[in-house]
Amino acid sequence: MKEKRDTLNRRTFMGGTLGAAAGIGAAHWLTGPAEAAAAQQGPPGTSASTGPGLYRLEADVRHCEVRGAIPSDLNGAFYRVGPDPQFPLVDGNIPFDGEGHVSMFRIKDGRVDYKSRFVRNDRWLAQDAAGRILFPMYRNPSMDDPSVAGLSRSTANTHIINYKNMLLALKEDSPPSAMDLLTLETLVPNYTFDDLLPSRTFTAHPKLDSETGNMVAFGYEATGHGSDVVSMFEFTPDGERVWDATITVPYVGMLHDFAVTRRYIIFYVIPMAFDAEQMANGGIHWSWDSTQPTYFGFVRRDGDGSDVRWIEGPTRSATHVMGAFSDDDRIYVDVEMSMSNPFPFMPMRDGAAWNPVAGASHITRLSVDLGPSTPQSYSIEQMYPHQGALPRQDDRYNTAPYRYGFLACPDPYAESRREARACYARFDHQTRQDTLYRSEEATSLAECCFAPRSADAPEGSGYLMGLATRNDQNRRSDLVILDAEHLDEGPVATVMLPMRAPGQVHGWWVPESQMPG
Amino acid sequence: MKEKRDTLNRRTFMGGTLGAAAGIGAAHWLTGPAEAAAAQQGPPGTSASTGPGLYRLEADVRHCEVRGAIPSDLNGAFYRVGPDPQFPLVDGNIPFDGEGHVSMFRIKDGRVDYKSRFVRNDRWLAQDAAGRILFPMYRNPSMDDPSVAGLSRSTANTHIINYKNMLLALKEDSPPSAMDLLTLETLVPNYTFDDLLPSRTFTAHPKLDSETGNMVAFGYEATGHGSDVVSMFEFTPDGERVWDATITVPYVGMLHDFAVTRRYIIFYVIPMAFDAEQMANGGIHWSWDSTQPTYFGFVRRDGDGSDVRWIEGPTRSATHVMGAFSDDDRIYVDVEMSMSNPFPFMPMRDGAAWNPVAGASHITRLSVDLGPSTPQSYSIEQMYPHQGALPRQDDRYNTAPYRYGFLACPDPYAESRREARACYARFDHQTRQDTLYRSEEATSLAECCFAPRSADAPEGSGYLMGLATRNDQNRRSDLVILDAEHLDEGPVATVMLPMRAPGQVHGWWVPESQMPG
Repeated sequence: MKEKRDTLNRRTFMGGTLGAAAGIGAAHWLTGPAEAAAAQQGPPGTSASTGPGLYRLEADVRHCEVRGAIPSDLNGAFYRVGPDPQFPLVDGNIPFDGEGHVSMFRIKDGRVDYKSRFVRNDRWLAQDAAGRILFPMYRNPSMDDPSVAGLSRSTANTHIINYKNMLLALKEDSPPSAMDLLTLETLVPNYTFDDLLPSRTFTAHPKLDSETGNMVAFGYEATGHGSDVVSMFEFTPDGERVWDATITVPYVGMLHDFAVTRRYIIFYVIPMAFDAEQMANGGIHWSWDSTQPTYFGFVRRDGDGSDVRWIEGPTRSATHVMGAFSDDDRIYVDVEMSMSNPFPFMPMRDGAAWNPVAGASHITRLSVDLGPSTPQSYSIEQMYPHQGALPRQDDRYNTAPYRYGFLACPDPYAESRREARACYARFDHQTRQDTLYRSEEATSLAECCFAPRSADAPEGSGYLMGLATRNDQNRRSDLVILDAEHLDEGPVATVMLPMRAPGQVHGWWVPESQMPG
Repeated sequence: MKEKRDTLNRRTFMGGTLGAAAGIGAAHWLTGPAEAAAAQQGPPGTSASTGPGLYRLEADVRHCEVRGAIPSDLNGAFYRVGPDPQFPLVDGNIPFDGEGHVSMFRIKDGRVDYKSRFVRNDRWLAQDAAGRILFPMYRNPSMDDPSVAGLSRSTANTHIINYKNMLLALKEDSPPSAMDLLTLETLVPNYTFDDLLPSRTFTAHPKLDSETGNMVAFGYEATGHGSDVVSMFEFTPDGERVWDATITVPYVGMLHDFAVTRRYIIFYVIPMAFDAEQMANGGIHWSWDSTQPTYFGFVRRDGDGSDVRWIEGPTRSATHVMGAFSDDDRIYVDVEMSMSNPFPFMPMRDGAAWNPVAGASHITRLSVDLGPSTPQSYSIEQMYPHQGALPRQDDRYNTAPYRYGFLACPDPYAESRREARACYARFDHQTRQDTLYRSEEATSLAECCFAPRSADAPEGSGYLMGLATRNDQNRRSDLVILDAEHLDEGPVATVMLPMRAPGQVHGWWVPESQMPG
């Protein structure tokens, strides 16, 4: 294999910077070996030599202790999911390949209960029974144990949304796994929308139409590993599929997220590219191919896909969308963008060392002039100095013009990276101003999530919440809840756990009105 | 209330020395304020100012990581139970009043799974529903919330044994709570042996007859709080009650444990005495009455109780029995004995300060000459220098002459208490020699438990196990498993948990042959 890895190893990434992932990893990555070593500590209070190398703690804590008070208009549940390796990852595999562990803060009438469970899907059940890894390499089925042929490979570890009174745990290479919203019991290990899913895969980032509430989603590598087919589809909240179409991509790159506006679906193909040779040699699915351009693609939501336009651009990475909108003249898509490979564990196809500066992400507005029938270029504008890879918005504005964005990031105004506390930032795109919540010392912050004050509250009026990891308390976890319009005032409530919660990629808020009775 | 409390508070005791309790607390108690402050740290990695004050983490960890290897002849389950307050204890209450939290290391074919659950008995369910404490004071029902009148007050937090294919969680002021051996689901919140229990209470320390396997047990304050009636009874493994009788005690003191020999049942009444006045003033059940003598009482196992003899002795405390036996001439009972009140949080009736030196326990042989028809005194012989309050034996020898005892204790040979590591000691009463397992630095050890190598293995041939708390890893827990005949060789296996396990008073081994199929 021609891949070369950064000296930061798997545990560094998981420990400090899932992290990176959560937009706050840069604080660890970029400040040098001392911080990397600190971040390298394993599970709570342990080092590899004295404690376990895995975490995997499924937990229940009832009547959680709260500092401050849960707002009376905050009722529902905050869900999180991330990879939590069921067994030690094999050499050469990457932290994205841990099994999905879902946690829930159930918030109601001022009370909070905490619960976490693994997604007990095909993969988890098979490995649990075998007592060992059966799917040893990230999205490389040729390496699977023969006993699991035909089973879904989903780790269900990336994102979590509610749909049809269920919780869907998502991994972009497979269909979702459906769980019970209250018990976190896995109900349907491999959920294919009552056989209406027109793809073998399902994105981790579906969008909710701001007008209809329909779910617009897609699957890439839709017909199998390495396939250039992207399947797009739209389901009503009741499960009716009201539209689907397919397109093909210029080359097969990671399509982790997408954007949806009132009229368009937008994809951004980056050179985290399918690597058949690497897979044939037993490696993972992707490598970073710095020789490839990006492609900004857009296609009408009501067509058959044949109208898709691909606009070539410079080599960049962008994996997450903050928000997007379009008018008659232009399409605007706000992403987190880096100059190169943002993941230290992802192989560089050219053998170069991973570059932490080029891998750092900033909120960036991409836009396209719809005037020309065949646009020749797209615009790239960095909007803010903040570094972070997990932008969020008020999700009621997924497909509509929006004003406010949120981001976990190191303090951009700190005198040095070393001193930069983890922050949640609120951006007002109208004024281009930010407001910051600066966390306490020795704290890491996971991706944040917005909960509106009510179904019809103005945009951005509500609460911003996210998991704080106390690195000086063996990575004990608190959920911090902030008034989204007054981040600088600090938490209105802090929900205290007695232990570390499992790692997180993405989180999701379900309001009380959508919880089971 | 006339009680005066030691300056060591509730958390100190729970944190460092449940503990004291586990025989290793003395190491913390006796070395001065610095250690007390260190022990005072709350839940994992927290201080009262930054983290939760409670723990309560119900957990599952499958396929636990093991350093070393689980012996092939060690199959079954190790259960532990201890108080884990469901809500903050009210002022004046004591750590013994936390709700019972049971944990299990299920060991089979080299694999270990960990699980912990609260005992969901009447008390827990009522308080969980109310979201607050309803039984605010240790064994003082006059303080209870009116809503719980008539419910069992059991915390089920002291000991745990298997009986009739169930796990019984025991608290000496109430009947047991019965749980499922595998799921830890509470099956019968208030288990009265199919209405055959002839007492309103049931000891935390029943004995298994070494010849018949019958369970010999008792209840004190058998007819109600403050009652001087002790009910004694014997059940077959199938649940048939084959004997019962009652006696009365000279005064109502804590009868935490008892001894059973082939012919006799032995009680030891200590001046941790029922305090009606204190209770009337809203306080706990007990205070230490240094004006009272002890009474060594023995009664035939096959009689009606009328033959009981009480022998007065000096003021002492002894709460746990290591082993006991009798022949035609004498009764021998090996206890852990202290000169005075062993619990820093238990009120002193005379207002004296609690004395940590007089409260330290040593393994001590009590014996009585059966020659005289009315023995006038009992003998007291300290057997070893080791300090510890939770002695154990090979439980196949509960009622038979025995040779080996085990104890968690600080290293008795350390140059200073400060440097004394936590140890497990094996005593050979025949040679009066000890063998020590000295734990790693910054480690506390809970009570140990012996598992025989096989049902018919020689006495003491098997494994000694117990929970190690890593105080330098935010009190993360490991289960250490030692060859009981070679403690000095260190663990044959260490089962590593990613977090702290709940506190423990006592533990119990159930061999595979007694586990559900």
